[in-house]
Amino acid sequence: MAMAGWYQSLDQQLVAASVRLSCILFLDSKIIRLLANHPFFGITVMTADRNAGKSIESLFPHFITQKDLPILVSSNDAIFSDVDAVLCCLPHGTTQEIIKALPKGLKIVDLSADFRLRDTSEYEEWYGQPHRAPDLQEEAIYGLTEIFREEIKNARLVANPGCYPTSIQLPLVPLIKSKLIEYKNIIIDSKSGASGAVPEIEQGLSHAAHSKVTVSFTPHLMPMSRGMQSTIYVEMAPGVTHLYQQLKVSYEDEEFVKLLEKGVVPRTHDVRGSNYCYMNVFPDRISGRAIIISVIDNLVKGASGQALQNLNIMMGFPENTGLGYLPLFP
Amino acid sequence: MAMAGWYQSLDQQLVAASVRLSCILFLDSKIIRLLANHPFFGITVMTADRNAGKSIESLFPHFITQKDLPILVSSNDAIFSDVDAVLCCLPHGTTQEIIKALPKGLKIVDLSADFRLRDTSEYEEWYGQPHRAPDLQEEAIYGLTEIFREEIKNARLVANPGCYPTSIQLPLVPLIKSKLIEYKNIIIDSKSGASGAVPEIEQGLSHAAHSKVTVSFTPHLMPMSRGMQSTIYVEMAPGVTHLYQQLKVSYEDEEFVKLLEKGVVPRTHDVRGSNYCYMNVFPDRISGRAIIISVIDNLVKGASGQALQNLNIMMGFPENTGLGYLPLFP
Amino acid sequence: MAMAGWYQSLDQQLVAASVRLSCILFLDSKIIRLLANHPFFGITVMTADRNAGKSIESLFPHFITQKDLPILVSSNDAIFSDVDAVLCCLPHGTTQEIIKALPKGLKIVDLSADFRLRDTSEYEEWYGQPHRAPDLQEEAIYGLTEIFREEIKNARLVANPGCYPTSIQLPLVPLIKSKLIEYKNIIIDSKSGASGAVPEIEQGLSHAAHSKVTVSFTPHLMPMSRGMQSTIYVEMAPGVTHLYQQLKVSYEDEEFVKLLEKGVVPRTHDVRGSNYCYMNVFPDRISGRAIIISVIDNLVKGASGQALQNLNIMMGFPENTGLGYLPLFP
Amino acid sequence: MAMAGWYQSLDQQLVAASVRLSCILFLDSKIIRLLANHPFFGITVMTADRNAGKSIESLFPHFITQKDLPILVSSNDAIFSDVDAVLCCLPHGTTQEIIKALPKGLKIVDLSADFRLRDTSEYEEWYGQPHRAPDLQEEAIYGLTEIFREEIKNARLVANPGCYPTSIQLPLVPLIKSKLIEYKNIIIDSKSGASGAVPEIEQGLSHAAHSKVTVSFTPHLMPMSRGMQSTIYVEMAPGVTHLYQQLKVSYEDEEFVKLLEKGVVPRTHDVRGSNYCYMNVFPDRISGRAIIISVIDNLVKGASGQALQNLNIMMGFPENTGLGYLPLFP
Repeated sequence: MAMAGWYQSLDQQLVAASVRLSCILFLDSKIIRLLANHPFFGITVMTADRNAGKSIESLFPHFITQKDLPILVSSNDAIFSDVDAVLCCLPHGTTQEIIKALPKGLKIVDLSADFRLRDTSEYEEWYGQPHRAPDLQEEAIYGLTEIFREEIKNARLVANPGCYPTSIQLPLVPLIKSKLIEYKNIIIDSKSGASGAVPEIEQGLSHAAHSKVTVSFTPHLMPMSRGMQSTIYVEMAPGVTHLYQQLKVSYEDEEFVKLLEKGVVPRTHDVRGSNYCYMNVFPDRISGRAIIISVIDNLVKGASGQALQNLNIMMGFPENTGLGYLPLFP
Repeated sequence: MAMAGWYQSLDQQLVAASVRLSCILFLDSKIIRLLANHPFFGITVMTADRNAGKSIESLFPHFITQKDLPILVSSNDAIFSDVDAVLCCLPHGTTQEIIKALPKGLKIVDLSADFRLRDTSEYEEWYGQPHRAPDLQEEAIYGLTEIFREEIKNARLVANPGCYPTSIQLPLVPLIKSKLIEYKNIIIDSKSGASGAVPEIEQGLSHAAHSKVTVSFTPHLMPMSRGMQSTIYVEMAPGVTHLYQQLKVSYEDEEFVKLLEKGVVPRTHDVRGSNYCYMNVFPDRISGRAIIISVIDNLVKGASGQALQNLNIMMGFPENTGLGYLPLFP
Repeated sequence: MAMAGWYQSLDQQLVAASVRLSCILFLDSKIIRLLANHPFFGITVMTADRNAGKSIESLFPHFITQKDLPILVSSNDAIFSDVDAVLCCLPHGTTQEIIKALPKGLKIVDLSADFRLRDTSEYEEWYGQPHRAPDLQEEAIYGLTEIFREEIKNARLVANPGCYPTSIQLPLVPLIKSKLIEYKNIIIDSKSGASGAVPEIEQGLSHAAHSKVTVSFTPHLMPMSRGMQSTIYVEMAPGVTHLYQQLKVSYEDEEFVKLLEKGVVPRTHDVRGSNYCYMNVFPDRISGRAIIISVIDNLVKGASGQALQNLNIMMGFPENTGLGYLPLFP
Repeated sequence: MAMAGWYQSLDQQLVAASVRLSCILFLDSKIIRLLANHPFFGITVMTADRNAGKSIESLFPHFITQKDLPILVSSNDAIFSDVDAVLCCLPHGTTQEIIKALPKGLKIVDLSADFRLRDTSEYEEWYGQPHRAPDLQEEAIYGLTEIFREEIKNARLVANPGCYPTSIQLPLVPLIKSKLIEYKNIIIDSKSGASGAVPEIEQGLSHAAHSKVTVSFTPHLMPMSRGMQSTIYVEMAPGVTHLYQQLKVSYEDEEFVKLLEKGVVPRTHDVRGSNYCYMNVFPDRISGRAIIISVIDNLVKGASGQALQNLNIMMGFPENTGLGYLPLFP
């Protein structure tokens, strides 16, 4: 392929770039869609213990056209010799042991919650069991791409953020860092088809604030297969009258985070199927307050899309490679 | 009918109880459903200028079985001699003149916004035109049934509340009256298939607080034909640790307002098609705060159901007459 | 209750009319809704083995207002001494033994498929196990109300029809009996949220035709919580040019089966929550053919509503008692 | 770009390939999505009379990231000097005059119904007005790609098929051509969010049959923003027992038409957002009959996707260029 030259200049040792998906969850089928059009990645191994021996199209008929995908194998039968990178989509809790056992040279993006919380005692508190790979936890980089891009570049293991934390931290972290909003009384009302927890959000905001931030977080289950909206109610710092300008500066060079024109309400169906986060900030009737709305496709920017964005960075590829999907509207 | 005797003791002069619906809007078809099973009301006149001369079933095939309903007439052709009460479902703005011209002896429940705001200058500000019936405005009683029941009993004209204000004021008014929550920083995040405005809400809360209350109100449009959920974020007054008990006391004798068991989340499909408001109060992660969730069917308790509840009271009927519909779940 | 006098004149032996629901399935919650407003029935026993000891409102919050409902008991603990009638909503297969063990004096409507097929060898073929109560099967009356009303009056055990068979047989049986359509090449394309089978349909049509009828039946799963539409493609008998008139004659005195005005398409949301079946017949572009469309709420006329209609008949009550719900539109 | 060389061999004069979209309809936003990732096409002109002067992102916020798109202009202000091809998405009826006035050298794909019917008298009968460009009608090629690919290669004007006709003709044309099914009594029951008409379908099937085919066609409106399913009931020719094999042979080399494994039911959400048509054939309970199910995304293979597929062919590009979108599931 014409791309080979450029690719080899990137990494002379690689014969063929390849990604190994560690299991077949619901989530995974989204990654396969993204990788199917990726110019540098092929999928060489896909594991799925209960479905070992089956084709992916027998489980997901919408992949009937993807005849090059490997047959599913059990984790024990997976061979990593041709593998450069792993996207790990195992359930929370079982991931730690699996990743501990992987060859050290692999680049790993983990989509579970297992390495998202820096404080392993907090992990134990929320997930009800001690962390079994604290060393890896220490090494893991939190993969909120636009905030931790530099750290991700050199990471070996990236903990991909949850969907709610992605939609919430992207607007709040710049505002907290710039001290434009109060750290107290941040109220978050999110709507999606998924449930979620709050420690990851508070960790990210506390890190940005250099002090403990506790938020009010209420996720509402909606009958939607894709899409997540977070409405965030904040108090502005004394004398602050503008949040819009800060978000504009923070994200004007970002490809996947977009501040809308003033007054335009972000809508989930405007990002469906894409890796975009749309956001905007609105005045509140109560003086000194503001309302922020952000939307993502929870299955793309909130999961597999951001995972691929991170992996692109880790591998030295252009960050947007394979992510050029425009929203599917309507 | 066997009920006639009881009914005559209520009003000897009446030959046949009757309700006149003043127009055929989307909204109206809901009232017809409720009146169809009402033991004391018959519908003698229905007006609909553009559809005058048509049967209701030709517009709404689900009424094919209601063969006793009168043919639609234009407003000018409506005869009020046999009419005791009017449910007025005209668009905002056109209602004032119509009601001004009605015979004085009629009981009227108006479902438009025209008589909801006590301050006619506020009406002008929000609706962009001066109020054309300020005397009637002065006379009108705000029909939030559980709060203003005594005033409704003797009212001639009731302004039926909007759906958002109903779902929001029912939980907040008792908490404000009892001074259990702060009046500032009340944040309301509502989800429904309808849009809405805030002055009616602030009027009701200010009235309960005896001081001006300004709220943050964000309605979210959801793809749902029926159902409204309001999530309300409040600060408790200093030293207050409980809101649940107050709501329990306030509503324990109410038929249509139900405080759920602690921990149970109110869901819109649990009230669909019924006149119930379900509510509950939850602790917030942020100390000193609480989260209230209330749900109604916006087309019943938020419109025609509460209208009939009010009319029952105005006519001296048992308040729940014709409103014994259990929720249609699923 | 004031109704007792009238009720006693109906059946002097009864002290209190009562219905025993034999289990708590998804389906059952619909029957409870219907019985809650029924003037002659109270619910004295509800069984649910896994949920024994719980209240119905703890399982279905929309029943929070129904404080008179009995606590769920296990089948073994159910006492039938005060019970006059049973609505049995157990899964297919387990029903036969349960009903065999009930006191002989009870009126029973069974909502499972266990007694719907007259030919027990056909039952065995479709359900994979021999029928364990062939005597009861012989006794059972098929409860398609408008077709078998006379038989139902004296029945002790009624097999309530499936939802697809109800929506399909109601229009087809009169047309087959009057020999207006060919028995061959009947094509049925149904849309609902449920799956279904065909032997019950063919049994009913064959019975009407006095000869074996085989149909083409394709049920399509749609994302709808309530509602079922059957589109039926038929060949008219030689020389026949009208089907509408026959359906009009067949159903003009029926309360729950309605032939719409010519040209009006039956829509599922026009019968939602009600016991109605709406139908109509349309000309086909292909000469000699016709298209029939019928709609029901699969959870009412297709299940609990027809069950109550049957039970009313079996008890000698007016057939529409407790079934006066107008459709919930929209 | 590496592709430039190949492209220049196609047309030495072009500096930049470009497509002119003739108007902004709902439909058009889909084409823009497809062209955004197309390697050989840029969009140089977009017309929209009422919205002239606006950006596309002000109308469709999901295009906020497409900063290179031209500002909308009115039809009169459109300049065609840099334009090689036109995708015309004007309403039925107004298209004829517009296309008549275009420079003769342009390749045109028209998405309206104006040039789909070969017989202009049939056009007049169905659309209520005489055809105003019968010469163009004569020249137009019907763009059902897999059936008329050879004709499309040399076409100047392609009439892009309607969505229902696409989903119906793709399975039926090969079966009719091979005389495996009877031409009479073809019954088509389609489900989608759009309405549709039948003459285009009968034209295509009659052409394949070399004799007049009249079908029974019933489109059902479903609450779905994308997706179309056609269920087709056919009689097999005497002695025929297999249709599957014929469809397999007809489409085994096609990229966008897929016959599923035996027994797998095509589902609309398995093709959502993609240019695929999935189909399968099932035995019928009635001997001698078969049931065919086909699904497409009505906004892609049923409209803009097939349009781009056709334009690729007309321009000499690989047919699948810019169409490599996998289905967006779920």
